[in-house]
Amino acid sequence: MPRSPGEASHDGGARAVGTRLYDLVAELTPMMRSITGDGVRKTLATVRGALEPAVPFAVREVPTGTPVLDWTVPKEWNVSQAWLAGPDGQRVLDAADNPLHLLNYSIPTHTRLSLPDLLPHLHSLPDHPDWVPYRTSYYHEAWGFCLSDRQRRELPDGEYEVHIDTTLTDGSLTFAEIALPGSSPREFLVTTHVCHPGMANDNASGIATATLLAAALADRPRRLSYRFLFIPGTIGAITWLAHNRESVDGIEHGLVLTGLGDRGQPTYKRSRRGDAGIDRAVTRALKETGRPYNVIDFSPYGYDERQFCSPGFNLPVGRFGRSPHGTYAEYHTSADNLGFVTATGLNDSFAIILRTIEICERDRTWTSTSPFGEPQLGRRGLYRSIGATLDREAVEMGLLWVLNLADGSHSMIDIADRADLPFNTVADAADALAAVGLLA
Amino acid sequence: MPRSPGEASHDGGARAVGTRLYDLVAELTPMMRSITGDGVRKTLATVRGALEPAVPFAVREVPTGTPVLDWTVPKEWNVSQAWLAGPDGQRVLDAADNPLHLLNYSIPTHTRLSLPDLLPHLHSLPDHPDWVPYRTSYYHEAWGFCLSDRQRRELPDGEYEVHIDTTLTDGSLTFAEIALPGSSPREFLVTTHVCHPGMANDNASGIATATLLAAALADRPRRLSYRFLFIPGTIGAITWLAHNRESVDGIEHGLVLTGLGDRGQPTYKRSRRGDAGIDRAVTRALKETGRPYNVIDFSPYGYDERQFCSPGFNLPVGRFGRSPHGTYAEYHTSADNLGFVTATGLNDSFAIILRTIEICERDRTWTSTSPFGEPQLGRRGLYRSIGATLDREAVEMGLLWVLNLADGSHSMIDIADRADLPFNTVADAADALAAVGLLA
Amino acid sequence: MPRSPGEASHDGGARAVGTRLYDLVAELTPMMRSITGDGVRKTLATVRGALEPAVPFAVREVPTGTPVLDWTVPKEWNVSQAWLAGPDGQRVLDAADNPLHLLNYSIPTHTRLSLPDLLPHLHSLPDHPDWVPYRTSYYHEAWGFCLSDRQRRELPDGEYEVHIDTTLTDGSLTFAEIALPGSSPREFLVTTHVCHPGMANDNASGIATATLLAAALADRPRRLSYRFLFIPGTIGAITWLAHNRESVDGIEHGLVLTGLGDRGQPTYKRSRRGDAGIDRAVTRALKETGRPYNVIDFSPYGYDERQFCSPGFNLPVGRFGRSPHGTYAEYHTSADNLGFVTATGLNDSFAIILRTIEICERDRTWTSTSPFGEPQLGRRGLYRSIGATLDREAVEMGLLWVLNLADGSHSMIDIADRADLPFNTVADAADALAAVGLLA
Repeated sequence: MPRSPGEASHDGGARAVGTRLYDLVAELTPMMRSITGDGVRKTLATVRGALEPAVPFAVREVPTGTPVLDWTVPKEWNVSQAWLAGPDGQRVLDAADNPLHLLNYSIPTHTRLSLPDLLPHLHSLPDHPDWVPYRTSYYHEAWGFCLSDRQRRELPDGEYEVHIDTTLTDGSLTFAEIALPGSSPREFLVTTHVCHPGMANDNASGIATATLLAAALADRPRRLSYRFLFIPGTIGAITWLAHNRESVDGIEHGLVLTGLGDRGQPTYKRSRRGDAGIDRAVTRALKETGRPYNVIDFSPYGYDERQFCSPGFNLPVGRFGRSPHGTYAEYHTSADNLGFVTATGLNDSFAIILRTIEICERDRTWTSTSPFGEPQLGRRGLYRSIGATLDREAVEMGLLWVLNLADGSHSMIDIADRADLPFNTVADAADALAAVGLLA
Repeated sequence: MPRSPGEASHDGGARAVGTRLYDLVAELTPMMRSITGDGVRKTLATVRGALEPAVPFAVREVPTGTPVLDWTVPKEWNVSQAWLAGPDGQRVLDAADNPLHLLNYSIPTHTRLSLPDLLPHLHSLPDHPDWVPYRTSYYHEAWGFCLSDRQRRELPDGEYEVHIDTTLTDGSLTFAEIALPGSSPREFLVTTHVCHPGMANDNASGIATATLLAAALADRPRRLSYRFLFIPGTIGAITWLAHNRESVDGIEHGLVLTGLGDRGQPTYKRSRRGDAGIDRAVTRALKETGRPYNVIDFSPYGYDERQFCSPGFNLPVGRFGRSPHGTYAEYHTSADNLGFVTATGLNDSFAIILRTIEICERDRTWTSTSPFGEPQLGRRGLYRSIGATLDREAVEMGLLWVLNLADGSHSMIDIADRADLPFNTVADAADALAAVGLLA
Repeated sequence: MPRSPGEASHDGGARAVGTRLYDLVAELTPMMRSITGDGVRKTLATVRGALEPAVPFAVREVPTGTPVLDWTVPKEWNVSQAWLAGPDGQRVLDAADNPLHLLNYSIPTHTRLSLPDLLPHLHSLPDHPDWVPYRTSYYHEAWGFCLSDRQRRELPDGEYEVHIDTTLTDGSLTFAEIALPGSSPREFLVTTHVCHPGMANDNASGIATATLLAAALADRPRRLSYRFLFIPGTIGAITWLAHNRESVDGIEHGLVLTGLGDRGQPTYKRSRRGDAGIDRAVTRALKETGRPYNVIDFSPYGYDERQFCSPGFNLPVGRFGRSPHGTYAEYHTSADNLGFVTATGLNDSFAIILRTIEICERDRTWTSTSPFGEPQLGRRGLYRSIGATLDREAVEMGLLWVLNLADGSHSMIDIADRADLPFNTVADAADALAAVGLLA
């Protein structure tokens, strides 16, 4: 995907960000993660390590059995080792090689059984014979292995040894929060799930992107406050919401980040509201890239937007990524690997999110102090005095549109949409008008 | 029109219904009907005879001269015989052969006149020389005959004898009502006009369809209450409305039935409101047939929807049929005969109306009892436990969509529309969720 | 552009109007106008002379220095003579030949200078080497000449004499108003700018059109009241608004007239509201011409609609003309001359404005006195008794639509739009129904 020089300079060294994102994805991908346990803790420690020490990073532990909305925090799962040995005593599969080999949340099991008895515990993908699928059994006690269909079909008859050294005990659910206060208490929420093991796009890319976004925003002046959640999928979102029912009203915008590094077009899934500020801000950021993108409607199927957009909360939270889950064969398989994501894709996603944040930071609603007739811009030095290096006509149109629509009911995005001008042209015009007292 | 096995089974023996409808149309078509008189009474007796005795069937008689809204009930018209004899004394035309031959509401007339004096009293269709037109003169005293243009052109010179043995006297206007109470007092109104003589599609098909619909619904459990009106066009609707001005507020949905048996596509004409529940229910029933259909906007021209949708009432009443009047040459002629309608067409119309009724019966608005986050469906046995024989993915999407939109402001149709799922998938999901207490 | 006989007769001698408009444009074009001064006064005297003495015509003078909204009335500018002489003493340019030669609002200047020193004061159009541009410097003190680029390039070296005999002194800003009271105090505002010198389309065509419109309306019965403003652009509109802040609420409709005589299609620019009565009335008038036209959205760039549609006023004022400014090369040059406008174009614009006014005059919202069921039209003689020479079906549909939508919330335009009938068919039906007491 060719990039124009303007984008690179706009992002402030975004190519470098792409490479840093890729390196962090590479570090996070191989870990054995689940919805609870030390895999999550190790992931959060990696996130912590990628941030400056001054960035506030709070790890929360919620005990097993805690009621959370309609759910209960489950037992904590940990793995010391898990392998399958063949009739010849050689290890056929070992979770140490690839965490996907172990059915996630497998109960402890040590047994010997024949191939016919083993087969119901094996999961493979006949349509993609070289890929290992990702499977879980969180709320139904089971054990199993995942492997390539090619390997499965070649398993010889004989007795197999199952050695699944896991624990499923009272413990806790672990998640982390980063809160970056702004001049306004209104919050921009960024969430990413931290429960998927061994896959690069879903969702090491989300964890890495949220991490470096937090790092970037920690260094900037902020109008909005920002909250980053690193949570296990579904149960983590439900746990966080259960503990923050009162404070969610402070959420002005939110994004669920997932699948940000593949070669597909950027894709935004609207919030349940459909026309929330975040919906319009991401759409504008995407439109102003000048490159293809997708915006899709909300549906109650997907990632944690399901929880944030449940009818009782109905938060202005959309989802951003590239190819949506279910639209690519590599989804939830071993083919979602470090070759499936690119620094370019990660970089582009990061730039669009930062651009969205910039738009939200500047998307104010002004009121003209001189609404009767046009104010005389000439004597205030506003004709030709600003934007000397920009397109003068667009600058003047920006001034006129902002003055005309600054009636207390049009945001900067509203004005940019109606005027068909770039957001920055409108926001810059508003800043110039505010500086001479024509907006309040 | 080929029909899939699924439709036939869905309709519960609908093919048989088509044949029964056709037979009833054949019985009703030849009668001499008008807006008042014994033709209406004979028609209503035929309807009564087609219903089980337990079905409540009330015949009303409203006396001539009764003020009804802006109108007055007219004199009652009856025909004993009506014929025209030629110069040779032979009968040229006889209403006993075809009720269309007599200008409807002709005043009593016994006279002899020459062909030139006769011609102004003769009505024919030069563009369709073999068809006899249907003509009326309800509110302007006149007499006349209708005949094929071919016959008219061949009339020899000479003296003709006019023998119109009609009476136009104080009597009454006759109509019938069937009221089938449901668990809710909210009403679904079905009306059909009973004034057109000698034609199969307009409107023996409407009378027959309303009759067998009432028979079918009398046997079913009903949430809504149903009211069937068998009324003369215009003056009958006005008379009924005049006597029910207070109770029309109970009408939740309504359909005017006319022209249900021809070979054209099913056509729905929206109510004046345009987006009433009936408008959305019929549209969904039509869409889910998977076959071509028409939905047209309201206009104040047509059948009795003109009265039900007059601005003072503005009832949620649409019109259902096949080819709209005025779009086919056979309309209001002798060519609207038993060859113009088919059991297949009647059957298809009947199935769509029943399906509309089923949708209205189930189109409730629920509220989730667990709106904060998604409820845990697994522990309630709602994943994979229902719809084992249906498409599991659609079933799960149905559950998720209903939960997400069950906020007290979305009906089942709303949810089916937004989710792009079949109505039954959504309604079944709601039933399953209600059964475990997740909806109220 | 061919015209049907119907249009000509409808307009009451519109061809004659086109010729009269053209003659008035020809008289107005050559004058030296600016935003203040005797050029405006001479223009207004010409307007006055084209009106019957009985038409009320008020000329206002607002003194230099008067604060008007965010602005101040500037010094008055007058020109006695202005010329440039070449090295040979011959006059190279003389404002007496063409008022465009003088930079409008040039300060008094008498000097001699070399060609290199002169050139920064000369304005020409390299892309159109034979045309003289129109340039102003109202709020920045400057002097200069405008000339064809061909002439500029041929100027010989040597010393030039600049003789600009202007005055820029305390005086006043001049504008005129015509107020024609109607039976309602609600106003239809027509404005045109009177500051552009030497050009036929922009805006001698606007001045001429407003003048003959006022003449035509003065002779007619009027439901609405009409106010015509002949004002200098921007500062004139601001001055008038500053003196009428309280009374602008009486403005029901408004049109800014400019560029009405060129060969382009008629073009309407919507008010800031977008769906005001004037927006719908002009659109309908244009649609019913059956010929191509443009309707464009409001933007805060253009003519005095900028002031009337500033957010504090937000008046229902649109702009009507033919080719919009900026879409034709001749705009603001000497090529906007008497060959650029035609009597046909002026006539067509005039007819559309008159038609718009007729629609606004008749665009009432009625309420049926018989809203329950259809009233019986036959006994009131409304079937076939009116419109005998018109299309009977359209007449009857007009009656039925008006009765159906006469619920106090639909205007005649609303009904014409929904019924897809000509406005007059609907308005005539309403008049007929009102005459028999069915509307109030």
